[in-house]
Amino acid sequence: MNISFRNIAIIGVGLMGGSFALSFKSHGLKGKITGIGRRKENLVKAKEQGIIDKYSLQPSEGVKNADLILLATPTGQFEKIIRNVRQDIKPGAIVTDVGSVKAKVVKTLEPLMPEGVSFVGGHPIAGRECSGINGATARLFEGARCIITPTSNTDKEALEKIIRLWEVLGCNVSLLTPEEHDMIFAAVSHLPHVVAYGLINAIMNIKDDIIHYGGRGLRDMTRIALSPTELWQDICASNRENILKALQAFSSSISHIIKLIESSDWKGLEREFIRAKKARQILESN
Amino acid sequence: MNISFRNIAIIGVGLMGGSFALSFKSHGLKGKITGIGRRKENLVKAKEQGIIDKYSLQPSEGVKNADLILLATPTGQFEKIIRNVRQDIKPGAIVTDVGSVKAKVVKTLEPLMPEGVSFVGGHPIAGRECSGINGATARLFEGARCIITPTSNTDKEALEKIIRLWEVLGCNVSLLTPEEHDMIFAAVSHLPHVVAYGLINAIMNIKDDIIHYGGRGLRDMTRIALSPTELWQDICASNRENILKALQAFSSSISHIIKLIESSDWKGLEREFIRAKKARQILESN
Repeated sequence: MNISFRNIAIIGVGLMGGSFALSFKSHGLKGKITGIGRRKENLVKAKEQGIIDKYSLQPSEGVKNADLILLATPTGQFEKIIRNVRQDIKPGAIVTDVGSVKAKVVKTLEPLMPEGVSFVGGHPIAGRECSGINGATARLFEGARCIITPTSNTDKEALEKIIRLWEVLGCNVSLLTPEEHDMIFAAVSHLPHVVAYGLINAIMNIKDDIIHYGGRGLRDMTRIALSPTELWQDICASNRENILKALQAFSSSISHIIKLIESSDWKGLEREFIRAKKARQILESN
Repeated sequence: MNISFRNIAIIGVGLMGGSFALSFKSHGLKGKITGIGRRKENLVKAKEQGIIDKYSLQPSEGVKNADLILLATPTGQFEKIIRNVRQDIKPGAIVTDVGSVKAKVVKTLEPLMPEGVSFVGGHPIAGRECSGINGATARLFEGARCIITPTSNTDKEALEKIIRLWEVLGCNVSLLTPEEHDMIFAAVSHLPHVVAYGLINAIMNIKDDIIHYGGRGLRDMTRIALSPTELWQDICASNRENILKALQAFSSSISHIIKLIESSDWKGLEREFIRAKKARQILESN
């Protein structure tokens, strides 16, 4: 399958958008990449470093002639961006994204696509604690999982092209419905992030000068609390119901442990720990 | 200060006890090391690998002539062990330990020391997910923090000797009271471990086949759930009140986040995240 694109527009040239551009080029894919953003100095830097070929501060200008449009801003901005540029997208173009939340994005963007333009939702699982163009790397997607979330409306050819594209960039692609995706990632990604923030704040609430006693365990466990806070606030807003459900399940799990310790049920407590350890071992072989 | 010991007895030749022996020898310290344990094949292996010089299955036999006795079993076993061997410890000997909990240990063991025998509580912060002699390494304590917990009863000379010993093995030694130690480590170490177990179980409760979607963030965050469950059950039992207080503070922190998401207070939520991120950055410079 031919997955070259003549012109690519990347809206949001940060960690994900910049890494996509670098990875695209390093895998020998052809196509002129236009970076679109709000901060000129960021775009100038990206062009000087050869990450993008040209840039535009005007999304409606930047997307003209693009065969592929990649949305790589926080998901909360997608709708406004597409409403602004939809009349400038050329027929036959594919719009896709790298957002960590899918149901709301797909439901909002699909009906906004002009005649002949296809939307395919995507989520490469390749975040890092850093953010911005300085963290961008051609190898970010190497070996990463990428979830593609087609619906019954998704154009088959556009879908195949997007799957193939991420595979070429080094990803293991899986398909899920947008709703499955959001339920699963609320549990295995969004919940852990929120828990990491909550854990650090709890330690600060207990006594705010003891955190420096934390060792490697605490450091590893809370590394994800270094992630961009704006992005995680956006994810919580976009996947609110699933994250609330996951947080309730987590609260129950912690309450259960508290009850076992309160009643000095050490055998029961160790059973809980053993159950968790066994499940955690599954991740080791991933 | 002369920190050589003619005879050293290590009770519990696992990750910590074995690493202590290896580190002791690799730093050129003199002294014959007797390993004491319940499983003969483990002790034979430790002797064959040159980790210990001889072994004994009889603690009362093994501690005879020892100038230094290191307790390296789970803390729940300390009292029984000391009651069994106290009449065989020679005057002038120092008893110390590597337990993760201190108040209960110090309060129980101090009064059990025979005339002329000193107890000094210690906790090198150098756990690993693995356990047992196979994980032992001479470098386990290199650059690690080691907390020593003297009381008003602690013999000054024995204290100085134990501080110097851990420094020679590569540790940065800090002094805390046993109670300070247990409050602090309930928050920065015991709480995170319990939360990791609870997080994995919550994900399994949401849907037990989704854990394999977890990425690097979840893996790093829950690595400590691979720790020996017997050890962590023992720590929860020995530091029960402090861990319960820390879990209550953590539950409040999670309830607060749930309320912010329920009320769609995204600005308030981001403030929580920013507060956590700033505190977490303190650990980066550790």
